Amino acid sequence: MLRRVLCTMLFMGAFPSPAEMSQGHISVVLLGATGDLAKKYLWQGLFQLYMDQVSSGHSFTFHGAALTALEPGQKLMFDVLKKLACPPDEAPDRCAVLKDQFLKLSQYHQLKTAENYTVLNREIEALLRQEGLKEAGRIFYFSVPPFAYTEIARHINSSCRPPPGAWLRVVLEKPFGHDLESAQQLAAELTSFFREEEMYRVDHYLGKQAVAHILPFRDQNQQFLDPIWNRHHVERVEIVLKETVDAKGRTSFYEQYGVIRDVLQNHLTEALMFLTMELPANLSRTEEVLRCKLQALRSLRGLEKHSAVLGQYQAYASHVQEELKKGQDYVSTTPTFAGVLVQSDSLRWEGVPFLLTSGKALDERVGYVRVLFKNRAYCTQSETLRDAGHSQCKAKQIIFYIGHGALNTPAVLVSRNLFRPVMPKSSWREVVGQPDLHVFGQPLSDYYVYSPVKERDAYSVLISNIYHGRKDFFITTENLLASWAFWTPLLNSISHQPPRLYPGGVENQNLLDFEMVSGELAFTAAEPVELLNPDRSMPSDFKTIQSKFRQSPLVSAWSEDLISQLASDVEKAANRAVAVSGQFHLALSGGSSPVALFQRLARHHYAFPWRHTHVWLVDERCVPLTDPESNFFSLHNHLLQSIRVPYFNVHPMPVHLNQRLCVEEDGGTELYAKEIAALVANSSFDLVLLGLGTDGHTASLFPDSENGLEGTRAVVLTESPVKPHQRMSFSLFLINKARQVFVLVVGKGKHDITTQISRVGRQPRKWPISGVSPSSGQLVWYVDYEALLG
Amino acid sequence: MLRRVLCTMLFMGAFPSPAEMSQGHISVVLLGATGDLAKKYLWQGLFQLYMDQVSSGHSFTFHGAALTALEPGQKLMFDVLKKLACPPDEAPDRCAVLKDQFLKLSQYHQLKTAENYTVLNREIEALLRQEGLKEAGRIFYFSVPPFAYTEIARHINSSCRPPPGAWLRVVLEKPFGHDLESAQQLAAELTSFFREEEMYRVDHYLGKQAVAHILPFRDQNQQFLDPIWNRHHVERVEIVLKETVDAKGRTSFYEQYGVIRDVLQNHLTEALMFLTMELPANLSRTEEVLRCKLQALRSLRGLEKHSAVLGQYQAYASHVQEELKKGQDYVSTTPTFAGVLVQSDSLRWEGVPFLLTSGKALDERVGYVRVLFKNRAYCTQSETLRDAGHSQCKAKQIIFYIGHGALNTPAVLVSRNLFRPVMPKSSWREVVGQPDLHVFGQPLSDYYVYSPVKERDAYSVLISNIYHGRKDFFITTENLLASWAFWTPLLNSISHQPPRLYPGGVENQNLLDFEMVSGELAFTAAEPVELLNPDRSMPSDFKTIQSKFRQSPLVSAWSEDLISQLASDVEKAANRAVAVSGQFHLALSGGSSPVALFQRLARHHYAFPWRHTHVWLVDERCVPLTDPESNFFSLHNHLLQSIRVPYFNVHPMPVHLNQRLCVEEDGGTELYAKEIAALVANSSFDLVLLGLGTDGHTASLFPDSENGLEGTRAVVLTESPVKPHQRMSFSLFLINKARQVFVLVVGKGKHDITTQISRVGRQPRKWPISGVSPSSGQLVWYVDYEALLG
Repeated sequence: MLRRVLCTMLFMGAFPSPAEMSQGHISVVLLGATGDLAKKYLWQGLFQLYMDQVSSGHSFTFHGAALTALEPGQKLMFDVLKKLACPPDEAPDRCAVLKDQFLKLSQYHQLKTAENYTVLNREIEALLRQEGLKEAGRIFYFSVPPFAYTEIARHINSSCRPPPGAWLRVVLEKPFGHDLESAQQLAAELTSFFREEEMYRVDHYLGKQAVAHILPFRDQNQQFLDPIWNRHHVERVEIVLKETVDAKGRTSFYEQYGVIRDVLQNHLTEALMFLTMELPANLSRTEEVLRCKLQALRSLRGLEKHSAVLGQYQAYASHVQEELKKGQDYVSTTPTFAGVLVQSDSLRWEGVPFLLTSGKALDERVGYVRVLFKNRAYCTQSETLRDAGHSQCKAKQIIFYIGHGALNTPAVLVSRNLFRPVMPKSSWREVVGQPDLHVFGQPLSDYYVYSPVKERDAYSVLISNIYHGRKDFFITTENLLASWAFWTPLLNSISHQPPRLYPGGVENQNLLDFEMVSGELAFTAAEPVELLNPDRSMPSDFKTIQSKFRQSPLVSAWSEDLISQLASDVEKAANRAVAVSGQFHLALSGGSSPVALFQRLARHHYAFPWRHTHVWLVDERCVPLTDPESNFFSLHNHLLQSIRVPYFNVHPMPVHLNQRLCVEEDGGTELYAKEIAALVANSSFDLVLLGLGTDGHTASLFPDSENGLEGTRAVVLTESPVKPHQRMSFSLFLINKARQVFVLVVGKGKHDITTQISRVGRQPRKWPISGVSPSSGQLVWYVDYEALLG
Repeated sequence: MLRRVLCTMLFMGAFPSPAEMSQGHISVVLLGATGDLAKKYLWQGLFQLYMDQVSSGHSFTFHGAALTALEPGQKLMFDVLKKLACPPDEAPDRCAVLKDQFLKLSQYHQLKTAENYTVLNREIEALLRQEGLKEAGRIFYFSVPPFAYTEIARHINSSCRPPPGAWLRVVLEKPFGHDLESAQQLAAELTSFFREEEMYRVDHYLGKQAVAHILPFRDQNQQFLDPIWNRHHVERVEIVLKETVDAKGRTSFYEQYGVIRDVLQNHLTEALMFLTMELPANLSRTEEVLRCKLQALRSLRGLEKHSAVLGQYQAYASHVQEELKKGQDYVSTTPTFAGVLVQSDSLRWEGVPFLLTSGKALDERVGYVRVLFKNRAYCTQSETLRDAGHSQCKAKQIIFYIGHGALNTPAVLVSRNLFRPVMPKSSWREVVGQPDLHVFGQPLSDYYVYSPVKERDAYSVLISNIYHGRKDFFITTENLLASWAFWTPLLNSISHQPPRLYPGGVENQNLLDFEMVSGELAFTAAEPVELLNPDRSMPSDFKTIQSKFRQSPLVSAWSEDLISQLASDVEKAANRAVAVSGQFHLALSGGSSPVALFQRLARHHYAFPWRHTHVWLVDERCVPLTDPESNFFSLHNHLLQSIRVPYFNVHPMPVHLNQRLCVEEDGGTELYAKEIAALVANSSFDLVLLGLGTDGHTASLFPDSENGLEGTRAVVLTESPVKPHQRMSFSLFLINKARQVFVLVVGKGKHDITTQISRVGRQPRKWPISGVSPSSGQLVWYVDYEALLG
């Protein structure tokens, strides 16, 4: 049959001679050949590939496969193939002939058992032998549910691999897991059958023409973008996919995934990477592109609960109840809308907000990536007299318009006051017209607008890239796992958070508008009472509670809220002290509990008077300061390197003197005590932050310690029961001179000791924490619910 | 006469009884009573004062004075008085009666000689005795040229002071000097005659209703403004006064002053202070208001040459040539347009750009103060469906509209998506209407708009405030000198800089648009060639020149350009080193020359890879690190405190060990050498920055030094011929191991030594600098024109 088709091709004249067919033969196997995706996109994409590559020197056969038996399967598949469309940019005659050939080159197979695969392999081999063709490679496109992956993979690996010298490419469709762990597991299974370079994980957004052009655009317009593609010039970036449809009919899938897993973790994240990654020197070097992308993904700042705002369209609950047969009391917290603030810690993007937004049941269907530049100009001429297009005072934007919406075509828009972009003439053409149309706050005439010469759907683009072996259009295992590693903490922290309900469509009004406040997101409008579900009050909705603990004030809440309260209280103390004395002496403890506080202070308290703050250590391990075990190292890592405290105001403990650690004769404790006495009035700190160990220790004062529990020495050397044993620490005497002492206790592991010390009197030798009792200062306990209630 | 008027008043019924006239009598003396300002504003203002205060319990007399003899002067003055207008908000009957009274209470005096003043004093005393009135105070309004100030002041002081118990207020009109020195001189003279509380220096902008309302607005709207009136929320502030008139007819004044002295140093700076000053707890406490204002003025960051863009309307040259009888070859560099970027170093405003702009011959007449807030919101609903007024995605602005322009009235505008402001109903009323008018990029309907219930010209407002003793509406001596101290360095640095020529009016187009780039200002459009004056090329237009010095590359330029080139080269070296090895080891010298470099790096090189940079000291004085004499202290002050270098990467020299300074046995030099050896590969620094002393020393290696000039020790103790004598320093051996050495030489004072060492060979004992010769690295000389050419 193949021979016959090849002959027909030769008659056409425009096709290559047999001598040119030397690139070898490619067999494409489409698994799930009669499924929805295949019907809608994949066969059309394969036909497009055939039309584009018929003269490439490769010959092709197309093998549709499914579980259905041969005859009904064949019928189903050829019903699809007969309906394949000719693209408007193809000559109808040529297309008709090629379609006829394509049908002849296509064949249906039932692939169910191991034997089916062996037979398929034999057929391919026989055909090639018969036609005298060299095998170039095989493509297996998995358009099947993920639970079927492993078995199919095993069969291909064991009995359908091409012979040495020819390549294997297996194409996989999402979902690739639903969190980091499940993704790792799936990846491990696949890795046991295929090598990394054999796997092509599809994110069809990478085939959207506007998305696929982000990197080439950056590359071709380097001369203009180099100076401005950074945090000094970019004000914000919006990556948006709005849908009008809801989840009806798909809730069995949707209820498990939600909008973040469905859209943000993959599509929007990929677009974000194309924007933020460093530009590789050569875009055609796939490895380099993938390396830069991975690096960009890894430099994203971790997400927290308040990095996102979540919504759920009102009818979702009833859709779920109906389709999943749930009772009236079933409450779903699956978000159908999300806005997420993503930030990068790279030098280039630090501080630039990337807003990723997607939702169902919104007012319009549209997708875009919008880069908004800062307005740095002042225009002296009055507005009415300014030259419309080129005024430097108009907004400056670059928009990769993915599709739908007002433009209803993929497009690239560049504000005319930025630059006239370099665009490849063969694939993008300038569009003029529709001057009255307003997009992104400006008339279309304010932009240079380009749209594709030939509009191609994403799958056609991707199938072409599979053929060309362009792995940079697909998701590598490392990329996939890095993305899940980034999104999973947020998914965990919001899993029980009730999303805001919205009516859907144009009625949403401003209900889903949100804004950035101190690095977090919040809806701008208060939640209207009538939309609130009375059943939704959850523990996390409780505000921090205030009470007493060991006769002192107690602040308690879930740990995240507790930390945020503590950070505010520290800032208040700082402002008070600075107002009174011009400086704030803050002594911080080591250990793991304060890390969250350090991060909170670094990320959310931009107005903290650091310039007037002195930072001291309550205790230190006897290791060099640059040792990762050092308390100071951790403090530096999580706080100091992100803020600007004057160098002279930072006071690490002198554990390292004369090139040795914590030797009594080197006088480190006296040195620190002297430094304190010299700078802190009456050695009375404005604020001392303490923790609590499971053995009742605080600072580095352990039960039965020889030093520090009694007496009037300010700083002492102590011994810890755990490594590193040697420590330097504030004494109880020094701690109790402070104006304020905050004790932070967090986590289930602290529940027993918390209960214990809530009952005991002052017994510092047994429980050093019980000796904390500022003589004229205030003591406040910050204990989270887990430590307090178990 | 006074008695008669008082009687008339009593007949009017609405006026106080004699018993209520117990507040005492006020004599107002207007010097320059027939001059332009008096004719146009001052008499009207005094009449307004009289109308407003006739029932206050004070009685008044008004004494016009000038050099003109009695009779012609009298005629001139009463011609003015007869034309006084009744304000539209005053009942015509009442006004007519009051005007009649006002004329009767007014009197002309020739004030020329000392005797004239004595006579005036006697007349006031006699009148008061005769009427049995207590004297409350005297106001002397100086509406005369500044050269006359001293003499008048002397006469008033010696023979016209009111008796003890009554106050004296002298009102002075600008100019108050033309730079810091002349202002200090004038202030010193006045201070010899008047006490500070007696002087009322007028800046009539403080009487503009919109400007005068800035502080009350901030006070009354604290609840809304407190969270947003800071750098986290304010994107930029524009303070603008545009004029359509040119300087024709006024060039004798203008040519000496220019737009910065005429408008920016006073009017715009005062408006800026009202915006940026901390809000005093009580606005009625004049002292507190003035203190906060002074503090704000003093926390402004120093201006540099490139903080401003300057323009001159094209016809100005011919106006000057005509009016000042200058030849065709006379070139004026007086700016008639200026845009200046002002920044505050206060915690509240750090980083917020304040753009002060003013010019003559522009396209419109308008004045405003515009506060633009950051857009932190994302609006999910598509633009066309958003609620117009309240969308959080529209611009958020607060505008104090001074007058003229599209609104043609003073006004306060607040974006509706911000808040509905609290406005005093008695003086400001809400304005609705003109919905089609667009101001500041938005329809007027997007704002809450308020205008004054009674429009008052600035002089009426100020005269009322003189009467009320509101010194916070006037410029104190401290305020004045602080303002000149701020502006004078800029004025000096631009005094020879050719401004950009502009045609004037609407033809200016975008020629005067400017933008902020790395903390500097630049015009956005390139200067059109046809407007360039070929005679204007000046030395400062030369780019840096490159040549050879002592066989090594030489970079030379005027010092400011040289520093900026050096800073760029340091950043390039840093990026190169970080790209290669992941870190950059930079050793910096002490002394005064590098300070400008430090500041340049801190302010303009935001992308410098500080996180990967290690900062070392080339030399140090043997004083504690926190001593202002310490090189490290200066480095910290000018650079480190503004950037974020990891704490561990900062390496001060250990001059202070065991609580003593630079004692050989404490081994500080070995310690530093070891630290270098441990962190810097092969002890070979990426870049060493050196200076040059007038004696040929470099680092702290002085002629004939015992240590450091020979041998292989890396760090040495040396002796300086000047205090503090003891030093620690890199040796020539260590310096010459560096990959790059930059030597910076700046200033006339270095010309002789520069010439000297350009001729000598390698003689390090005589000229230590001549021993600098990196064995395998590169040496580059950065020598400014003054050092090079003398």
